[in-house]
Amino acid sequence: MIKNLAALENGTVTVSGWVDTVRDQKKVQFVVLRDESGAVQLVNPRTTDADGVVVADEPASTISALSQGSFVTVTGELKHDERVKLGGIEIKLASMELVTVAIPETPIAADSSLDKRMDWRFLDLRQPKQNLIFRIQTTFEHALRTYWVEHDFVELHTPKLMASASESRAELFEVEYFETKAYLAQSPQFFKQMAQSAGFGKVFEVGPAFRADPSFTSRHATEFTSVDAEISWIDSHEDVMQLHEELLVAGFAAVKAKHGDEVLALFGVEVTVPSQPFPRIPLAEAKEIVKNRGYEVPRDDDDMDPEGERQIAAYVAETYGHEFVFLTDYAASIRPFYHMRPEGDASVTNSYDLIFNGTEISTGAQREHRIDVLVEQAREKGLDPEELGGYLDFFRYGVPTHGGFGMGLARVLMLMLHQTSIREVTFLFRGPSRLEP
Amino acid sequence: MIKNLAALENGTVTVSGWVDTVRDQKKVQFVVLRDESGAVQLVNPRTTDADGVVVADEPASTISALSQGSFVTVTGELKHDERVKLGGIEIKLASMELVTVAIPETPIAADSSLDKRMDWRFLDLRQPKQNLIFRIQTTFEHALRTYWVEHDFVELHTPKLMASASESRAELFEVEYFETKAYLAQSPQFFKQMAQSAGFGKVFEVGPAFRADPSFTSRHATEFTSVDAEISWIDSHEDVMQLHEELLVAGFAAVKAKHGDEVLALFGVEVTVPSQPFPRIPLAEAKEIVKNRGYEVPRDDDDMDPEGERQIAAYVAETYGHEFVFLTDYAASIRPFYHMRPEGDASVTNSYDLIFNGTEISTGAQREHRIDVLVEQAREKGLDPEELGGYLDFFRYGVPTHGGFGMGLARVLMLMLHQTSIREVTFLFRGPSRLEP
Repeated sequence: MIKNLAALENGTVTVSGWVDTVRDQKKVQFVVLRDESGAVQLVNPRTTDADGVVVADEPASTISALSQGSFVTVTGELKHDERVKLGGIEIKLASMELVTVAIPETPIAADSSLDKRMDWRFLDLRQPKQNLIFRIQTTFEHALRTYWVEHDFVELHTPKLMASASESRAELFEVEYFETKAYLAQSPQFFKQMAQSAGFGKVFEVGPAFRADPSFTSRHATEFTSVDAEISWIDSHEDVMQLHEELLVAGFAAVKAKHGDEVLALFGVEVTVPSQPFPRIPLAEAKEIVKNRGYEVPRDDDDMDPEGERQIAAYVAETYGHEFVFLTDYAASIRPFYHMRPEGDASVTNSYDLIFNGTEISTGAQREHRIDVLVEQAREKGLDPEELGGYLDFFRYGVPTHGGFGMGLARVLMLMLHQTSIREVTFLFRGPSRLEP
Repeated sequence: MIKNLAALENGTVTVSGWVDTVRDQKKVQFVVLRDESGAVQLVNPRTTDADGVVVADEPASTISALSQGSFVTVTGELKHDERVKLGGIEIKLASMELVTVAIPETPIAADSSLDKRMDWRFLDLRQPKQNLIFRIQTTFEHALRTYWVEHDFVELHTPKLMASASESRAELFEVEYFETKAYLAQSPQFFKQMAQSAGFGKVFEVGPAFRADPSFTSRHATEFTSVDAEISWIDSHEDVMQLHEELLVAGFAAVKAKHGDEVLALFGVEVTVPSQPFPRIPLAEAKEIVKNRGYEVPRDDDDMDPEGERQIAAYVAETYGHEFVFLTDYAASIRPFYHMRPEGDASVTNSYDLIFNGTEISTGAQREHRIDVLVEQAREKGLDPEELGGYLDFFRYGVPTHGGFGMGLARVLMLMLHQTSIREVTFLFRGPSRLEP
């Protein structure tokens, strides 16, 4: 790999990659060769005959005809030379083998629109910035999973095909399933709770979730990677928040350690490992704070809106110097029936949203585990307990106190890298009008 | 957690779990309490009044009414006593708090059919054996991912919603997608190859795959967890096989180290870490070997059949003492158009199936990266290159030599634990007639 060249002594090397740029000058040819780990300059002084005329020998002819994006394997003499801007090394070419020749005209350029770049995502992803995003994602996820495994969590692969709706009948994709219909899971919620009743204790899953959401915002996708955890024997949503912040600290610390310098160089962003505990503000109080800053949330229900989230994040940044804030105790009126409500106050729930740099990335809660209360809350929301079917069985046959969260992976990456759309940080985005490539 | 009790000194402890069994005797009550980590005996000597008559005090009354599966939190005196069969400890109860009371009648018993147990999977999963399966799965996957991360692989989350078929139009689930149709991905094949053209180098994914396969065998599901890897710059499928066996060694070694004793105790199976290299036998030779053992594969094409796979596995076990065998060089006639064929022999492919304990768990191959050869092979298979659309663009704009494999996670677990069906090792099985729970 190219990143390993700098540590080698001068001598013969063989490397493979794709052609980034070619400068075909009269006396010398330069090629910048790239692989997933970096870039290196190849140099080929032209041969001249006795009369000083340039000879069309190899690899000179191959280089002259080289199109950007072609994949090649080259052999040559590695030379350390601090005058070379690109990493202080270059390779004087002996031979070049063409593996695949790319079409010379590239359909996208640096200034292409995001939509155009998505049409040609496999070329777009060749950029070092785009490549780095997915290395960061890999590191982040592995840090979370390592935390989970070290803390005795069980990894789940819950089904994405369901016989009925998981939470609501809205925004559900319908699948032709032999003689019947199936639906794509909107979240693993139902199954994570089942694992609690099954005595799994602590579970996690990183997998796809599907929402037939026709909106075109920069934060929504019809298919996204959901990061989920659920734990038994909690006292309240506070236990879930503690788990959540420990995971994020582990994830951000790993990203900073492995990619901090690159993120600064390519994105101009300093990765900050958040300090614990993250600030916690009850939603009602947050709305007061926002109001005092001159912003009245224009909603009839008790919910926050995106601008309100940005305002409270600005307040938290100014007051606590923190990029994260838990907004807690959401009103029962805007939370699902299975969120637990605290003893003696049925108007709020043991729940939270986690805001990162002004945008919601996650919802968590303690779940109601008492069958009678659960049925009552479902009825209050206009749901027929009969329709909840097997879900209620978990509670009838015993379940511990429990809670958990679901978090959008792309949102975390978008906000970590100060990107304006999850499209930039999703390998292949899926939206109402995009199913390709 | 219960597993931590044995290391504690005698004294007051609080533990939570579900009720496994109750023995409500005249003078003393015993409860076996279970959590995800183990089981412990609770003991409660009955109180008698001055006349020697048993008093209905607490927690005695609660225990008498206790239904199996109820979740409770108890406090009492931990006592080490080697006469206690269950781990040499017991807890003399001081108090018991009921968290959720289970319905007394459990719908499944030890001798229930697999189908009935699947109906009540969350109760079925409370068995220590079932719980262990998913702890093994967690350990196995984490070992694979750790190998990948340490070797600079990038983790992918490829879309499961596609505009068109990935490999064939058969066995494809159709999704209502706003004004159009989408299809569920049968494998991440297409996207893994795209990542090669994008210069990602080495990639992996563990995620769901979907096949509208109407068959009811013990090895097939309509939704399953696929373990996939793809790597650039290979010389042949030999490089893929080497990666594959290194991963399996890492996975099996981790499972043996962490769960070997439990697997032996609960499944009667000695986990064996396979030795490297795994035996490799070209398919044509394997068919000869099987024939010499007296089994003629009853197929008109060049493929192996399940009985043939068992026969060759028996041969390998006898000859090499190995549970794994790579069958290599499958005939081009039975492999997809994108499998590369070796120089000078268009009749076979640079491909393999991996057989574990007599059953296929994986298919791997070097992919054809030369656009002209690829188009030719597609035509030969009766495919219209026009219909392959964007897939061919990867090759037109440059791609390195590459290859990879896809492996069924449940099959590995089934065969590792000598189970007869993937239903036993899948959290929630999905088949032609099963979408619930």
